[in-house]
Amino acid sequence: MKLVIVGGVAGGMSAAARARRLDESAQIIVLDKGKHVSFANCGLPYFIGDEITDPGALLVQTPQSLKAALNLDVRPEHEVVGLDAAAHTVTVKSAQGTHRESYDALILAPGANAVIPPLPGIGSARVRTLRTVDDAVALKDMADGAKDAVVLGAGFIGLEAAEALEKRGLNVTVVELAPQILPPLDAPMANLVQAELERLGISVRVGVGATEVIPGDERDVVVLADGTRIPADLIVISVGVRPATAVFEAAGIACDRGAILTDDHGRTNLPDVWAVGDATAAKDPVTGAVRPVALAGPANRAGRLVADDLFGLEGARPIPTPLGTAIVRAGNLTAAMVGANRRSLEQAGIDFDTIDLHPNQHAGYFPGASQIHLTVHFRANDGTILGAQAVGADGVDKRIDVLATAIRAKMAVGDLIDLDLCYSPPYGNAKDPVNLAGMFGQNVLDSTTALWHPADLDRVTQTSLILDTRSAGEFAGGHVAGALNIPHTQLRDRIDEVTAAAAGRPVRVLCASGMRSYIAHRVLQQAGFDSATLSGGMLALRAHLGDRGDSVIVKG
Amino acid sequence: MKLVIVGGVAGGMSAAARARRLDESAQIIVLDKGKHVSFANCGLPYFIGDEITDPGALLVQTPQSLKAALNLDVRPEHEVVGLDAAAHTVTVKSAQGTHRESYDALILAPGANAVIPPLPGIGSARVRTLRTVDDAVALKDMADGAKDAVVLGAGFIGLEAAEALEKRGLNVTVVELAPQILPPLDAPMANLVQAELERLGISVRVGVGATEVIPGDERDVVVLADGTRIPADLIVISVGVRPATAVFEAAGIACDRGAILTDDHGRTNLPDVWAVGDATAAKDPVTGAVRPVALAGPANRAGRLVADDLFGLEGARPIPTPLGTAIVRAGNLTAAMVGANRRSLEQAGIDFDTIDLHPNQHAGYFPGASQIHLTVHFRANDGTILGAQAVGADGVDKRIDVLATAIRAKMAVGDLIDLDLCYSPPYGNAKDPVNLAGMFGQNVLDSTTALWHPADLDRVTQTSLILDTRSAGEFAGGHVAGALNIPHTQLRDRIDEVTAAAAGRPVRVLCASGMRSYIAHRVLQQAGFDSATLSGGMLALRAHLGDRGDSVIVKG
Repeated sequence: MKLVIVGGVAGGMSAAARARRLDESAQIIVLDKGKHVSFANCGLPYFIGDEITDPGALLVQTPQSLKAALNLDVRPEHEVVGLDAAAHTVTVKSAQGTHRESYDALILAPGANAVIPPLPGIGSARVRTLRTVDDAVALKDMADGAKDAVVLGAGFIGLEAAEALEKRGLNVTVVELAPQILPPLDAPMANLVQAELERLGISVRVGVGATEVIPGDERDVVVLADGTRIPADLIVISVGVRPATAVFEAAGIACDRGAILTDDHGRTNLPDVWAVGDATAAKDPVTGAVRPVALAGPANRAGRLVADDLFGLEGARPIPTPLGTAIVRAGNLTAAMVGANRRSLEQAGIDFDTIDLHPNQHAGYFPGASQIHLTVHFRANDGTILGAQAVGADGVDKRIDVLATAIRAKMAVGDLIDLDLCYSPPYGNAKDPVNLAGMFGQNVLDSTTALWHPADLDRVTQTSLILDTRSAGEFAGGHVAGALNIPHTQLRDRIDEVTAAAAGRPVRVLCASGMRSYIAHRVLQQAGFDSATLSGGMLALRAHLGDRGDSVIVKG
Repeated sequence: MKLVIVGGVAGGMSAAARARRLDESAQIIVLDKGKHVSFANCGLPYFIGDEITDPGALLVQTPQSLKAALNLDVRPEHEVVGLDAAAHTVTVKSAQGTHRESYDALILAPGANAVIPPLPGIGSARVRTLRTVDDAVALKDMADGAKDAVVLGAGFIGLEAAEALEKRGLNVTVVELAPQILPPLDAPMANLVQAELERLGISVRVGVGATEVIPGDERDVVVLADGTRIPADLIVISVGVRPATAVFEAAGIACDRGAILTDDHGRTNLPDVWAVGDATAAKDPVTGAVRPVALAGPANRAGRLVADDLFGLEGARPIPTPLGTAIVRAGNLTAAMVGANRRSLEQAGIDFDTIDLHPNQHAGYFPGASQIHLTVHFRANDGTILGAQAVGADGVDKRIDVLATAIRAKMAVGDLIDLDLCYSPPYGNAKDPVNLAGMFGQNVLDSTTALWHPADLDRVTQTSLILDTRSAGEFAGGHVAGALNIPHTQLRDRIDEVTAAAAGRPVRVLCASGMRSYIAHRVLQQAGFDSATLSGGMLALRAHLGDRGDSVIVKG
């Protein structure tokens, strides 16, 4: 068996290693157009930010180490420029010239290329992407002595690069065409991260694109669509990636908008050809949308499963649909998500409900307690969890990982009540944030709670009495204009005031995070009011409003 | 509806709060024999250790705050001393004398009492338990100016108390009758925690009990069964708890060894009487054993579900079987567990397999990477996950929470491969430790890997060639006597040496953590050897051997 693998970073190298462990006798050749294989692409921004100082640390494996441990024939700087599926050969270009390599089985793991927006001046030497170790080394060099940097694109890598450059002392501006940073996140979560970036001193421009780079002798200038001109000693492009599949599509590999289509064992439409990783398409488990998922985790795990199928391992496990679990550190915050977000659910026309909550990550009486902003989307009819997002200083990754596991298990939101999670004051709460999400969600499903949402604010202001159940001091610190303030502890004695103020209108209750207003809501609901409680309270409202908050929330 | 609740800490107060949210009109009375309700019992050790300095912080709620927010009638220092189920009354003793309180519905949440071993001298004023805020305040006072402390019982609370007293500068000795500390943990995990406690300066005595306390004028002396005499200025008893149910059992509530038996909605055998929390029995989901589970999380969650059933909420969710998820901080380590341990599986006669692994909690090239010792038990025939344990400096709680979710979802170990968990260098790995556990477990299930275990060492030493695949330097630093050293990178070229040394015997491979020996094992297996790889490698072996390690592992 001669196995040729195109691409030796995540999915490709994972398949190669598994292939060797399954078959000592196979000839395994890994071809990669880059200088390095099996390198830590997710670590590149931290190298720029000097959290990782040794570039050698980014080289997880080398051709030599892979030869020694796994008897792999790894050939960097070998680009595959042709495929003849009928002849079972690939055409390989390297310093030694061009030759054909035959295969019995072929795994395509070519990855994706950075998208370079076709702007005037984009070819300036001060413009770089951040995809390779060489990119990272070059950016670090360019940053020395530089003053201003512009990052085009506010996705995960863009923000990590921005923070790394800021750590090196540069003035950094992030420019994002979408109306928010981190487009996969729901807007309120993105607003929280944006505020943290701004706290670090990073300028954030959303809803506006770059139109031109004007190269200069001393420095370049980035021009935005609104006319803003930003000087830049270096410019990082991170506006997305595109599957690097042109050669293979031309050779007859079936693709969808450039992403290789496979079955759930990674088999392509051509015999003896498998594909894995950023170059492949995956079906969104919630919305059914077919799109590439450019994430290291799914690629690494799928690589192993492709090798299982290729070597005919009995009952080889199918490659699971990636849930798109992703996480990013931004300053002192962590933002993470899994599954579908609000936009994709709305676009798919799915009937869903959303809860927002702000529990502490561990016991409130234990030092270091901090709130997690947690959002969970679930199907309105049966409670199936569809997606979740969280932002906070600590414990975010744990909760999203638990929710990712629950989604994989097809749990309903109420099932989260029953999760038996670690509790001791330094680690959690007797009712963990995930348990609380289950309780809130189940309350919504069985109508123990009626919710209103931050996005309803304008309509609610028109039609309803807003009842703020926080203390008088909290109310004075900032409240929705026109709201009535009755602390939840006084509500039972002052319910006549609510009747008078509501004058037949619905009552829409709120507090800081949604706990006290929930209690008040239950009092009002049982007293016959048309009542609902604001999901996530003022914290969620402020996150939703973002910069608009100061004009809607009044003091005094 | 008049609802009376006996016990106002975890399960009882959780039921009371939910009851009020479900029914504004109910009269809800909470009777508690203690001075405080709804206090942070899990926080008491941290108060002693001065991580929590304000005793007020331990009082999460007060009767006043519960009256104001939830209109609850909370009566501390009201002990229930009788139950007349036919008459629907309880007899209550308080400073105001004894009276009967009628009820329409009754929830028993009396909790558990500390077991006091019947030793001579145990009544000394220097002996305390740690169950209440007053206990914690008293212990802290006693610790001031004290020099030596003895903690009897090395369970979770015992160890937390020991560490807290050590933080206050006392010489602390922990005495445990069982052959290991933290009896719910598997022995190798307990050994790791014991080593950490000893590193902190805490003396640990296992496999020996106290026989007597000799009260003295200046200080007491604790006498152990082996004759050891330990001077003590204070003595903490934490040898376990016993359901506080004598009154109710005498009144006809069905119990099993003192623990109240309920159905899965918390209903007891008597009409209109529910029970919840540490006083109740639960059925172990793996072994079927019926025993009380004295944990705050399950009690809090069950309290809510009892109220749902009591108020006839449609389709009230049954109380889940607690998985016994537990966690403890010990020095710089965290130890956590979920589900069944080795002992309970062996006692139940279940055919299971075990994997041990030592993955980094996050990318190895990112600063602060540290290993997690992770053990997973699964059913041998179908891979159903039965239990998991972990010890490490960071990321332990997350992995046990994910595994607790997987166990609740009845996943098989191979399903862990497919979990789509957060990955970015500061948080995890492209193959998370939990994914790796899935891969290792699946390899065992489908015989891609044959394992041997640390407990097999004596037999393996007699019958097999031990092949150590670490580097020569690592081998010289400590290895099993008689082992042959061939680094895994040289194995393919030196396989004849293995043939010669094995002389027909099985080959049992090992390395540091099990990764390299797995590769070597695959080489040997495919070359026709009877081969197996040591689960968890030298790290697991050392943890298994504990203090015995130095006599079995030789240098040079």
